[in-house]
Amino acid sequence: MITVHGMSMSGNCYKVRLLLEQLGREYRWNEVDAPRGATRTPEFLAKNPNGRVPLLELDDGRTLPESNAILCWLAEGTGFLPADAWQKAQALGWMFFEQYSHEPYVAVARFIRGWTPADSPRRAELPRLHERGHQALAVMERHLQAADWFSGPQYGIVDIALFAYTHCAADGGFDLAAYPRLGDWLARVRATPGFVPMQANDAEAVARFALAD
Amino acid sequence: MITVHGMSMSGNCYKVRLLLEQLGREYRWNEVDAPRGATRTPEFLAKNPNGRVPLLELDDGRTLPESNAILCWLAEGTGFLPADAWQKAQALGWMFFEQYSHEPYVAVARFIRGWTPADSPRRAELPRLHERGHQALAVMERHLQAADWFSGPQYGIVDIALFAYTHCAADGGFDLAAYPRLGDWLARVRATPGFVPMQANDAEAVARFALAD
Repeated sequence: MITVHGMSMSGNCYKVRLLLEQLGREYRWNEVDAPRGATRTPEFLAKNPNGRVPLLELDDGRTLPESNAILCWLAEGTGFLPADAWQKAQALGWMFFEQYSHEPYVAVARFIRGWTPADSPRRAELPRLHERGHQALAVMERHLQAADWFSGPQYGIVDIALFAYTHCAADGGFDLAAYPRLGDWLARVRATPGFVPMQANDAEAVARFALAD
Repeated sequence: MITVHGMSMSGNCYKVRLLLEQLGREYRWNEVDAPRGATRTPEFLAKNPNGRVPLLELDDGRTLPESNAILCWLAEGTGFLPADAWQKAQALGWMFFEQYSHEPYVAVARFIRGWTPADSPRRAELPRLHERGHQALAVMERHLQAADWFSGPQYGIVDIALFAYTHCAADGGFDLAAYPRLGDWLARVRATPGFVPMQANDAEAVARFALAD
């Protein structure tokens, strides 16, 4: 059986859970206490030298890092990833967009607003994060003028990857009212079979995060 | 024939050129003057709403953004990307590592040191970029303890993706002397058949970049 090492409050980890639930795959979830240093132990670094979750582990001990690589591997051969080479390349383009142009702004703004003290110097980063995050959201809104999904002709892993931090962008101070198509798309994702929401933030974990910052 | 819209001084664009040269594929190179706003015109944004190069264009006008998605598409079915599903997933993991944990630090430090004025406020970012960039370089050094390449059993697109900004990391203020295996790997990449170096910085283009900052 697959084991996922993850942190439930993390959108990147939620991506993997959502896909596994929608695929109906059995899996073990190992909750990792990253704020308490659980991704920096020698044991964890032996599994992922980059010290990050999510991390997928097979029964024989082989591991796979990077949320979007995990999604691609799990989705291969299923309807969650197009089989056509060109459509698959487009999907991959969006996956890299998510990790380079979207997550570093939309997710990081949520982290700073939700998990750092009100007087944290990191709050000075917010204006730039908002500017870049809105650029990414505008690119998504534009795509939805002519398409219902990001993964190709049907719902799939790109929608999962982009949903993870877009649906909670308001936590980072992003007003989604200016993106009506995005709002409709979020509702379509929530209506897909087997959809599960991201776990709400745990107050005690938030407090630990703030201490770790 | 394939057209690549790119900027020769960009490592992300160089990746695509290096692979195409090593594949022996014919292609057109359209040099894009990003500092003069060529990626922000309505014509370019119609091709890539995210306004970035490299961008691959087919004869029928279809386009593909994101350097690493382009590499994956071009390498599919060739020896530059493993055919085995698990090895391919590992390669993809490294491609996301490159765009999330490496390029935003190693490439951005090079940009700030090479293309912004000595009194640019962006120079304040350098200590954090160096800290994070060294973390990424250490992860690479660790991998090379047990492997010759990042793409799998042989040289391929992950090596190309990671070579692009690692080989010029010194431009960003990174001393690679502490990473002997990285140094050997860089030499192995340079010795691969059909290798072409990245174009040296053009002084006039550097000046324009500084103005655009």
